[in-house]
Amino acid sequence: MHLQFPYIIMIELIENAQQALANRTFFAAYPELPKAYAEGANEKAIDWLATQMNSPFNELLQVASAETVGDEASPYYNELLGITYPFYQVDELIQRANSAWDDWHYVPASERGRILVHALDRIKERFFDIAYATMHTTGQSFMMSFQASGPHANDRALEAISLGLSELTRYPAEANWIKPMGKFELNVKKIWKAVGKGIGVVIGCSTFPVWNSVPGIFATLVTGSPVIVKPHPGAILPIAIVVAELQKVLVEAGFSQDLVQLAADTKSNPITKELAENNNVRIIDYTGNSGFGNYIESLPNKEAFTEKAGVNCVILDSTSNLEGSIKNIATAACLYSGQMCTAPQNFFIPENGVRHAGGIASYDDVVLMLINNIKGITAEPKMVSGLMGAIQSLDTLYRVSVAAEMKGTVLLASETLTNEEFPNARVVSPLVVEVDVDNYDVYSHEWFGPIILIVKTKNTDHSIELAQKLAREKGAISCGAYTDNDEMTYHIADSMDKCYTPVAFNLTGPIWMNQNAAFSDFHVTGGNPAGNATFTDVNYIARRFAWVGHKIAQ
Amino acid sequence: MHLQFPYIIMIELIENAQQALANRTFFAAYPELPKAYAEGANEKAIDWLATQMNSPFNELLQVASAETVGDEASPYYNELLGITYPFYQVDELIQRANSAWDDWHYVPASERGRILVHALDRIKERFFDIAYATMHTTGQSFMMSFQASGPHANDRALEAISLGLSELTRYPAEANWIKPMGKFELNVKKIWKAVGKGIGVVIGCSTFPVWNSVPGIFATLVTGSPVIVKPHPGAILPIAIVVAELQKVLVEAGFSQDLVQLAADTKSNPITKELAENNNVRIIDYTGNSGFGNYIESLPNKEAFTEKAGVNCVILDSTSNLEGSIKNIATAACLYSGQMCTAPQNFFIPENGVRHAGGIASYDDVVLMLINNIKGITAEPKMVSGLMGAIQSLDTLYRVSVAAEMKGTVLLASETLTNEEFPNARVVSPLVVEVDVDNYDVYSHEWFGPIILIVKTKNTDHSIELAQKLAREKGAISCGAYTDNDEMTYHIADSMDKCYTPVAFNLTGPIWMNQNAAFSDFHVTGGNPAGNATFTDVNYIARRFAWVGHKIAQ
Repeated sequence: MHLQFPYIIMIELIENAQQALANRTFFAAYPELPKAYAEGANEKAIDWLATQMNSPFNELLQVASAETVGDEASPYYNELLGITYPFYQVDELIQRANSAWDDWHYVPASERGRILVHALDRIKERFFDIAYATMHTTGQSFMMSFQASGPHANDRALEAISLGLSELTRYPAEANWIKPMGKFELNVKKIWKAVGKGIGVVIGCSTFPVWNSVPGIFATLVTGSPVIVKPHPGAILPIAIVVAELQKVLVEAGFSQDLVQLAADTKSNPITKELAENNNVRIIDYTGNSGFGNYIESLPNKEAFTEKAGVNCVILDSTSNLEGSIKNIATAACLYSGQMCTAPQNFFIPENGVRHAGGIASYDDVVLMLINNIKGITAEPKMVSGLMGAIQSLDTLYRVSVAAEMKGTVLLASETLTNEEFPNARVVSPLVVEVDVDNYDVYSHEWFGPIILIVKTKNTDHSIELAQKLAREKGAISCGAYTDNDEMTYHIADSMDKCYTPVAFNLTGPIWMNQNAAFSDFHVTGGNPAGNATFTDVNYIARRFAWVGHKIAQ
Repeated sequence: MHLQFPYIIMIELIENAQQALANRTFFAAYPELPKAYAEGANEKAIDWLATQMNSPFNELLQVASAETVGDEASPYYNELLGITYPFYQVDELIQRANSAWDDWHYVPASERGRILVHALDRIKERFFDIAYATMHTTGQSFMMSFQASGPHANDRALEAISLGLSELTRYPAEANWIKPMGKFELNVKKIWKAVGKGIGVVIGCSTFPVWNSVPGIFATLVTGSPVIVKPHPGAILPIAIVVAELQKVLVEAGFSQDLVQLAADTKSNPITKELAENNNVRIIDYTGNSGFGNYIESLPNKEAFTEKAGVNCVILDSTSNLEGSIKNIATAACLYSGQMCTAPQNFFIPENGVRHAGGIASYDDVVLMLINNIKGITAEPKMVSGLMGAIQSLDTLYRVSVAAEMKGTVLLASETLTNEEFPNARVVSPLVVEVDVDNYDVYSHEWFGPIILIVKTKNTDHSIELAQKLAREKGAISCGAYTDNDEMTYHIADSMDKCYTPVAFNLTGPIWMNQNAAFSDFHVTGGNPAGNATFTDVNYIARRFAWVGHKIAQ
């Protein structure tokens, strides 16, 4: 073992995280602001990416491969990155994971936890590299790339490690079980071990390649199983750095690098199904579309953790701060051009308008304000680059053009925008369409990307009813609501409880319904069709291992 | 609310149970010995069953049904019990469960827990009735019927309630989340609610109709969902009493009886698949054969908790008490005529014999001792009635006759035995067959019933290897091992850890590998093909509800 990071700090970090998790209060183990990092880190990272482009990614400690793959493209440069990664057959990956598993099985939970926290510390040193890698694969803005793939991802990983340690040490390792039998006693020594269920596969997505993957990676590792990371072919680099840092720390600590392997593939020759269906794979973490997610859930004898698609709604009832509210939801809709699983899509506005401090804003007024706010964002180059980022996938660009033809009235057409720093960046302004409430089939599926639907409802109860129906039938990961009334707050919360959808009420200022914080917000509830798991409840940890107990007569 | 059972005692009971659960130490909330109950209870129960036979079971508070069903038969009388139960269409059951759910959703966890513990107290008053109902449906001996369906089942239910309350109250109901933003703070009130996932169905088995069903019933109820109890058509009465008592307590507390409904059916007209496949059913608890269990696990969008079949082995290495060891495993194999999911089936004996305090007992000696011990049991009428009970199903009787034709050498033929009290009882002595180790296909599936296979292995490592292979490929719920050597104890435990199989070491005297105690033994690990769940780890509770969290800007 050669862990330089002081043990005492690690233990403190884990304990603080456990405390925050139990109390659901704010906690940030990793600072969000770039200025908290080493001077020159930003410039170094820019240089690093320039050097890394058009070269093999050679940081992995996995054995050399015969083949290489890689067809990532930057949504900012609108060209291929030219980075290649080793390619392995599924059987090779499985065999090496199985070999690596045996040692790891015997490592006490606390030791596994310390090694993994040490890895987080090392990943922290790469936050700027990871940020630029994220930016140039996902199209996120630099700031979001830094936050989501850096500190927020590390916090989510620490959350998984912390809850993992709580659960793995929940019971004593052994106990003397004494049963009074009248004239004598039965004495039995009982011992228990938490045994990892087997090889885990983490299937990443193209938009949040780190944030959505690290919880599963660290949860599987801390609970004693090896993990194979299968990134989306369009966003490999950010998580490849994470895997490389993990491998380095594992090897330094005396373990096999194959406890975590990168399994890169291409769109044209995907290995995901073969990997997922392999009998040795017992745990699967998946983020992506619902069709493939349902297939993953249907595989027998696996613990599947899925985050699929949902249709997220905003319910406008009343507000003491109309301007702040509309500005907030317009920003929420524009954040990363709607390419978040938590982005609002359907805006339900009552036909009689929205009551506010100054009276009642009519339906038309509210729609106009929303559109003006969006126009305000797209007219401002700094907002375009800082908030909207670029479009990850050509499919999404295509979807925006198709969406303009949907049954409804286009209130704001989507236009090509310019990113001043990156003239070739794929950036378009949001499409806003008014859809008749009777055309449920139009607004009842996910229009992933910068596509905003406005639906005129009879009243707030009608809005709630639609939001419930959508959550039950199609899934929902988030919901926004604005009301100045305690009774209505309770009513909305209670209604959305019953379809397992979290609601963000009355957000104004620099906090948006799209955001779920580690240590306090469960991400996805697991109760509706948007997914069967959550970051991070106890199921997320405990389904990855089994308790095996033995009895020894004394 | 009209709960007579003092609240303070209930709270204490739950707290003691939680303590025992956390420490995995011995705890029995409900006394095992009949003498601890009211005088005359036994005689009253005998009279009760005599009156109940050939009559409708009219204790349920469910609405009257147009049809009735019932074709249970007593393995002791070898004739139909003639008891009928209301029959409902699946849609009726679902509709009523959904109606009942709404109220229950708002009841605080602690209140649900108190109501359910109160129900256990009322069930306790029926232990003798339940015992005779169990005896005359399952064929268990009276003592096993009393223990397994009475105190042990109530303890398992209390375990589920206790862990349920721990998990439901794991997080604060609300918290103030304050995020420092430099010059100002973000203030958000966050609230969380544990919401039951929806209607549960508990599918019972014919051999342990109460013990295997109450954990799921109480776990689903305490976590906030309604439950439909679908007993095996051959063993309805014991669990019908439990359901009736639950309904009475629920109605007294002001809730709908339909929070728990009995859904009896018949072998010829089963409703299980229609019930399980209903979209409103979100939670399924199942005990039974592997084929149907695999089907249950394959249903989409359900939380399935299965206990299926396994092949349990005994590994004989060495012992300081040869006689006590062989007597113990012979008894374990005879307990309820091998009709336990935890019963040992394959006895692995090394070709060089078993080392013991007095030297080495040859393979032949050990086999002879085992057979003599079995003969000793079957020759003793009190052991036949008290230990072996009767054969629940005609299928099992048939299986014994078929098993005599398996590829192997019959060392002890199965013969019809007599139960002195019940001359028509279906009782047969165990069949003992020596099977060649190379005939893996013969001993690699479950021979449910009084069928014991002896396999000569090269040595203990060979025995371990076979036990591992069987657990991995076919599942295992228990394993017995005898060794006087600490190193070998560790080696066996570690080997069986890796195939998720609990081992009982060196049991002698009145404790058998078939038994799993509440509050300390996990029943089924969930890690091998014998089942995907366990009584009672945190998954068993937490998969039944989802956390929904809301944020309210302050």
